[in-house]
Amino acid sequence: MPDDSYDITERNRVKRMGKRAHYDRAAIHPILDAALLCHIAYVADGQPYCTPTAFWREEETLFWHGSSASRMLRAQSGGIPVCLTVTHMDGLVMARSGFNHSINYRSVMAFGTARIIDDPAEKRAAMDAFVERFFPGRNALLREPTSQEVKATAILAMEIEQASAKIRATGPGDDEADFALPVWGGVVPLHTVVGPLQDCPRLPAGVRPGPDLAPYRPGDVLDDVFTATHGRAYGHE
Amino acid sequence: MPDDSYDITERNRVKRMGKRAHYDRAAIHPILDAALLCHIAYVADGQPYCTPTAFWREEETLFWHGSSASRMLRAQSGGIPVCLTVTHMDGLVMARSGFNHSINYRSVMAFGTARIIDDPAEKRAAMDAFVERFFPGRNALLREPTSQEVKATAILAMEIEQASAKIRATGPGDDEADFALPVWGGVVPLHTVVGPLQDCPRLPAGVRPGPDLAPYRPGDVLDDVFTATHGRAYGHE
Repeated sequence: MPDDSYDITERNRVKRMGKRAHYDRAAIHPILDAALLCHIAYVADGQPYCTPTAFWREEETLFWHGSSASRMLRAQSGGIPVCLTVTHMDGLVMARSGFNHSINYRSVMAFGTARIIDDPAEKRAAMDAFVERFFPGRNALLREPTSQEVKATAILAMEIEQASAKIRATGPGDDEADFALPVWGGVVPLHTVVGPLQDCPRLPAGVRPGPDLAPYRPGDVLDDVFTATHGRAYGHE
Repeated sequence: MPDDSYDITERNRVKRMGKRAHYDRAAIHPILDAALLCHIAYVADGQPYCTPTAFWREEETLFWHGSSASRMLRAQSGGIPVCLTVTHMDGLVMARSGFNHSINYRSVMAFGTARIIDDPAEKRAAMDAFVERFFPGRNALLREPTSQEVKATAILAMEIEQASAKIRATGPGDDEADFALPVWGGVVPLHTVVGPLQDCPRLPAGVRPGPDLAPYRPGDVLDDVFTATHGRAYGHE
């Protein structure tokens, strides 16, 4: 069992709005596990790139999806420093002054050194974990990957060396005198939700979504779905 | 009127899934204008950082919010290369093989050199534009910013030097033989929606949301709201 908090170094110390900062795994892991999409910053030829991709967490390792052809992979295969960021935007915070407007959010910046998973067995296990983490039980329903597909898939991984979270989850923090002004203040809440499942036009007659899709019910909040499927896949429901 | 497409260089050429790539402003600008949240990659002391923040577009300039205290600003005030990325995740694409699973998305990577807006009048105009772009008409309702607030706000800007978009918006692309398999394939659609407005607990009696909040109706798709408010603020409705 690792220590409860990540070490605070110059790299992950939150410089702005320190009161919103968290370094404990109990704050950081749930923000990661409520997401599928991350953005990864890395440097290639001196130029920073910010690439969106799908990722998941297994203990202290973050895995993400690439391709043998991608610029990201070519840059990262040597083991280079990356920053993987996840952001949930939860609301627009409307204050009585422009200055005090804000956003409610949960975000994590995780720092480490990316490596490419080369070993075919390890890669195959990661590919299965990728499907299973979001759609528990789905692998058993799919056809097996071919060796060509395993070869053409790139999975990258990094151990979390440092990380920090920032969370804002409250109403407007107006100046005291401003609360009395006759302009609306409050929060515009935002949620990402699941829509009604859309059948592939080539679906054979009678094929319905299986139990692997059961967590994705129309109107469900996506964060909650991903949190639940992570719990199911990794046994911490 | 600038040329219709951004130049394609080594920096912005899409290496993977080139068929999903777009370089024309008609594809790129609407993806930017449907968003408030971006992720910015930049390098400080050799370490890449990926920072989420609020941004907006005005013609060929992207503006975003920082703080005098932020690491990002200190790193960028000298005018350094950044990559600003926006991603809308529109659906989970469920195929009959693990390999063909995908995501429907619209994303833009924009490249340029960040500069900090130092001139107080220019900064004040940008602060007003920031509020007005998302909440047309709101500035007129707010109290004026103090000179201290203007001083404490950091706005960064960059001209778009190159950009590219990637869009995937279709059903599963399974191998021909796999369409017949008895496992569900299709799309799990995702939308970020507006929730019911939450009053500040200290709202004076009788104060209601003004016309600036009218575009934010419960159940509205956030992308559409941001697209509409951008059109209203910049006159291309």
